[in-house]
Amino acid sequence: MSSSHSSRHYYLSDIPLDQAQDIFFKAIKESGILNQCNEELLPISETLGRITSQPIWAEESSPAFDSAAMDGVAVHSDTTVNATETNPLPLSIGCQAMWVDTGDPIPVGYNAVVMIENIIQVNDELIRITAPVAPWQHVRSLGEDIVATELILPQNHEITPVDQGACAAAGLNKLAVLTKPTVAVIVTGNELVPVGSKLKLGEIIDSNSILLSGLVTSWGGVCHIFDPLPDDYDRILTCAKLALNTYDAVIINAGSSAGKEDYTAMVIAELGEVLVHGVAIRPGHPVILGVANNKPIWGLPGYPVSASLTAELFVKPVIDSLTRRTQTSEPSYITAHITQKVSSPMGEDEFLRVTLGKVGDRIVATPLQRGAGIIMSLVKADGYVKIPRYSEGLDSGSEINVISNTNATRIDNTIVCIGSHDLALDLIGNYLKDVAPLIAFSSAHVGSLGGLRALQRLEAHLAGCHLLDPDTGEYNISYIEHYLPNTRAKLVNLVGRVQGLMVPRGNPNNIHSLQDLTRTDVRFANRQRGSGTRVLLDYKLHQMRIPTSSIKGYSREEYTHLSVAAAVSGGSVDTGLGILSAATALNLDFIPVASERYDLVIPTDHYESELLQPLLTLISDKTFHESVNALGGYDVSGMGHIIADFN
Amino acid sequence: MSSSHSSRHYYLSDIPLDQAQDIFFKAIKESGILNQCNEELLPISETLGRITSQPIWAEESSPAFDSAAMDGVAVHSDTTVNATETNPLPLSIGCQAMWVDTGDPIPVGYNAVVMIENIIQVNDELIRITAPVAPWQHVRSLGEDIVATELILPQNHEITPVDQGACAAAGLNKLAVLTKPTVAVIVTGNELVPVGSKLKLGEIIDSNSILLSGLVTSWGGVCHIFDPLPDDYDRILTCAKLALNTYDAVIINAGSSAGKEDYTAMVIAELGEVLVHGVAIRPGHPVILGVANNKPIWGLPGYPVSASLTAELFVKPVIDSLTRRTQTSEPSYITAHITQKVSSPMGEDEFLRVTLGKVGDRIVATPLQRGAGIIMSLVKADGYVKIPRYSEGLDSGSEINVISNTNATRIDNTIVCIGSHDLALDLIGNYLKDVAPLIAFSSAHVGSLGGLRALQRLEAHLAGCHLLDPDTGEYNISYIEHYLPNTRAKLVNLVGRVQGLMVPRGNPNNIHSLQDLTRTDVRFANRQRGSGTRVLLDYKLHQMRIPTSSIKGYSREEYTHLSVAAAVSGGSVDTGLGILSAATALNLDFIPVASERYDLVIPTDHYESELLQPLLTLISDKTFHESVNALGGYDVSGMGHIIADFN
Repeated sequence: MSSSHSSRHYYLSDIPLDQAQDIFFKAIKESGILNQCNEELLPISETLGRITSQPIWAEESSPAFDSAAMDGVAVHSDTTVNATETNPLPLSIGCQAMWVDTGDPIPVGYNAVVMIENIIQVNDELIRITAPVAPWQHVRSLGEDIVATELILPQNHEITPVDQGACAAAGLNKLAVLTKPTVAVIVTGNELVPVGSKLKLGEIIDSNSILLSGLVTSWGGVCHIFDPLPDDYDRILTCAKLALNTYDAVIINAGSSAGKEDYTAMVIAELGEVLVHGVAIRPGHPVILGVANNKPIWGLPGYPVSASLTAELFVKPVIDSLTRRTQTSEPSYITAHITQKVSSPMGEDEFLRVTLGKVGDRIVATPLQRGAGIIMSLVKADGYVKIPRYSEGLDSGSEINVISNTNATRIDNTIVCIGSHDLALDLIGNYLKDVAPLIAFSSAHVGSLGGLRALQRLEAHLAGCHLLDPDTGEYNISYIEHYLPNTRAKLVNLVGRVQGLMVPRGNPNNIHSLQDLTRTDVRFANRQRGSGTRVLLDYKLHQMRIPTSSIKGYSREEYTHLSVAAAVSGGSVDTGLGILSAATALNLDFIPVASERYDLVIPTDHYESELLQPLLTLISDKTFHESVNALGGYDVSGMGHIIADFN
Repeated sequence: MSSSHSSRHYYLSDIPLDQAQDIFFKAIKESGILNQCNEELLPISETLGRITSQPIWAEESSPAFDSAAMDGVAVHSDTTVNATETNPLPLSIGCQAMWVDTGDPIPVGYNAVVMIENIIQVNDELIRITAPVAPWQHVRSLGEDIVATELILPQNHEITPVDQGACAAAGLNKLAVLTKPTVAVIVTGNELVPVGSKLKLGEIIDSNSILLSGLVTSWGGVCHIFDPLPDDYDRILTCAKLALNTYDAVIINAGSSAGKEDYTAMVIAELGEVLVHGVAIRPGHPVILGVANNKPIWGLPGYPVSASLTAELFVKPVIDSLTRRTQTSEPSYITAHITQKVSSPMGEDEFLRVTLGKVGDRIVATPLQRGAGIIMSLVKADGYVKIPRYSEGLDSGSEINVISNTNATRIDNTIVCIGSHDLALDLIGNYLKDVAPLIAFSSAHVGSLGGLRALQRLEAHLAGCHLLDPDTGEYNISYIEHYLPNTRAKLVNLVGRVQGLMVPRGNPNNIHSLQDLTRTDVRFANRQRGSGTRVLLDYKLHQMRIPTSSIKGYSREEYTHLSVAAAVSGGSVDTGLGILSAATALNLDFIPVASERYDLVIPTDHYESELLQPLLTLISDKTFHESVNALGGYDVSGMGHIIADFN
């Protein structure tokens, strides 16, 4: 953080995506790099998945000689004419017939094979055959499979195992294949430290080089990762220059925006030409597209989701061209219904990550967090939907085309759980993968009320729920009656659990009850409206006549127990209400406030469906109960029991 | 070839496929091998595509501290309340505000960021801001993306590039992944020589070890290939024993039948148990399924198509289970119409290889050669259809479900050419791949008449044709009028070419004209009925009053020029009629007999379709003409010209 900022340059113009693609890919074509064909000669056994750089012509015929197609005796067909089952024809071995096994050459003077089933062996010198054979019967002719000089594989063809076998059979030893395009990745940022480092304050793990290298590798390139560089113009310039001399293409990651230490555009301009700086997409708009040394050079934004998306939009097509792998790169589209209204700014193409599941006969797409910094939204995504720049967003329930990285079978086998979060759900997700590998568990955390609404809109198979009715003191039942009045459903207990105030180890602020939240020196982190924890807090505050306005941080909303715990652990707040397992996970102290019941609400149709049976079996399993119990703070005695049945 | 065959054992019982699968996979489950979980710890960068052996939990939160989400100044939100655009609020740097770049930690005492766009810099000590900020605005909270201890990836999950990035961001350095299952391949056969050997008579290249290794690798296993063994019981036994001790599974290739030197079943019985010997499938019926040392051991048949199919049916499911990769192994089905009647024996499940293409609005499947020895049928196949054992075959035009290794886009982009063969078609196939990488060229060789019939049945986009009308001496036109009376079509010249008698180098039999074919010492190889070459031969023989019965080998039918040349080259015949390029390719001498025209027949709808344009451009291209000319014996002067237009 320098004190002088007079050199800041804020100029970055966002142009539409299609325009950016036109400009960049046209320049790449003109650079000539796509016409290069660098090849290497590899032993056949090392060519699986590689691309032929030349047509492959057969050097030998296969078979290379007329050979027996069956075990039996080689004969001349003329000598067999009179053989019948009732009157077997005698043939003398060595003179009229020769024993052959499958693959043996047909001896000179013979032109057919009598198969073993039609031979009666009299002695070592004599056999009888029970059927005649036609000329060339049971003979594989020279070249029956492959004739020398014929085309085995065209150029630009991706080599499969059977291709490898055919090339070997055609007498080849080595094949000419395209070399893999090489891509250098230069990550920049003073704050970056290598993967696996113990972090000091302000340091960030350089995870993008791993991400980008994985992407390049999965697209068929080879990635060279340079050590992270500080935000230093000269060092980035020197490194990029070196990279351009050595590799086919260069990615500079971060520093692509217009901040004071954003040198990427300057470096690219110095080495070649910046064709595009800024594209009207979200996330990823501060992307730089350039050409230097007749090679592509990209400045990709630093947030992981931006880096990944812009790499897919601008790096992958170039690698696809270099690997001639144009055919396999077609995206697959799945039609789905979006589960919630999504507003999106006019003027930008937004790429919204979603999870997919089939509830009833509809495929539903649930949006994931939209922040460019949320890499977990990529991990969880089943695909994304492009919201065009002339649209203001998507209406809830509207039909969308999802560019998907999954398939119909997997979507059919995904259990969609939307509602309150509990760590036991994470355990369910993991254990299911073991006991029922074909079944995926998608868990979205929108609070208890959000879960019931999702069931109402037929967007989930089940919902995690812990909603206290302040009038009855009972959990969930009155809410289900209110929100799902016409739905047959079962209420199944998952766990009993303790809610309490999470505080740093040793409780430095001496917090002992909800009353302490009103102290001016206590900063609180709340949960979002509609969450069971929020309902519980409001109920307790009302009982204790504590006005919410007296609590500093009452309006700061977090979406999971763990994120509240993280806020306490990080020191930005002093306490928050949550469950013991979250406090334990982040090594916090815990002041119990109340016990509550956390249930699963499952419409009866889904409860009885084949899809949910492995989950229902799992939550009734003793070993699984023990695993949940080990998290701490849980009462698993009622796990899997049906608490209420709504008809 | 030993002289004693008293030890031959012919006993091999074919049981139905589903029964064989039940018996074998049940035994594999009971062996316990599928429950083993061998894992290894790898740096994240080496885990792409590997399968997690443990759930992956976050070790660090990301971000690990509250950080600026924008470039700007960190402030406390309370101090910004009165800022407006018309009345910018002054803030002193270092006291009320601190410069931060994206990703910088929020300094203690601050809780929001004013973005750069809303800042007016007065001097190094003073700024003015034009808008207030809410608490936590433009701040990424600790754990916003990942909270330490949360589940990043479940176990048995295939690791993607974004997963790698997320694990790195979560503070991990190495990941526990399943080791790849190891499979030993032992090929047996006295006649086998290593890949790349110069062949002596009777020797066969061991291409199956390359094929099987490629298949195992593509399914996620690691293959160890032993050197080929001779048919020697003791040596095979010793090697298999060693392999069972070292690897997770063992394939013995060939010797699985019941011939005198077929030791595979005996070896497996000695080491463990033969569960199945013989399955009612075609190809591949003499397969052996066994268990030894609680490990799977297979005896796969020696023909490459049999080896490949039985590996897919019996080896792949076991590797899929060991790699927990059950989801990605779903076959994809494509509905198509079969282009010809296929008879199939009752009692056997037949797996018929086909190529696929879309002609008009129908997807058509053209059967490939059915022999178990034809590896090129696998190379060319777009998939296969299973003809069930209770069926006698498929009627021409009937709807079938093809288990496909291609996709709809690729099928849409396949040009289907059925008809006579010419080497120029091979060149078209290869060059198209270069000029129009998205377009595939499928060329099936059924003779000129077969091509016209395929056009009639709407099964091809174009047909290669060289049919002489004996009455007019003109090529193709009268045949098109007869066979395609109601079709708008264009007749386009491909080449003029010379047909002649192909003879071994030096012409040892002194063959000089068709008259020599009647000599008793001359063996001839003919082309199949309906081929243009056959029509030409019959026309010439008729002119010369030579009876076909006087020609030895008139009934031996080959399907391409190259296979006739191969028969001459191999010495099983003395001569055959064909084109110069085929003779040149196999180093034969050539006695010209007649010139002929070889055209493409293209229905006008296809001629005008977008799909065919790259092909039409190619055959009008001078460089391409030169490549064809270089084959020898061609007249390319009319190439691409329209000879007739049928309306």
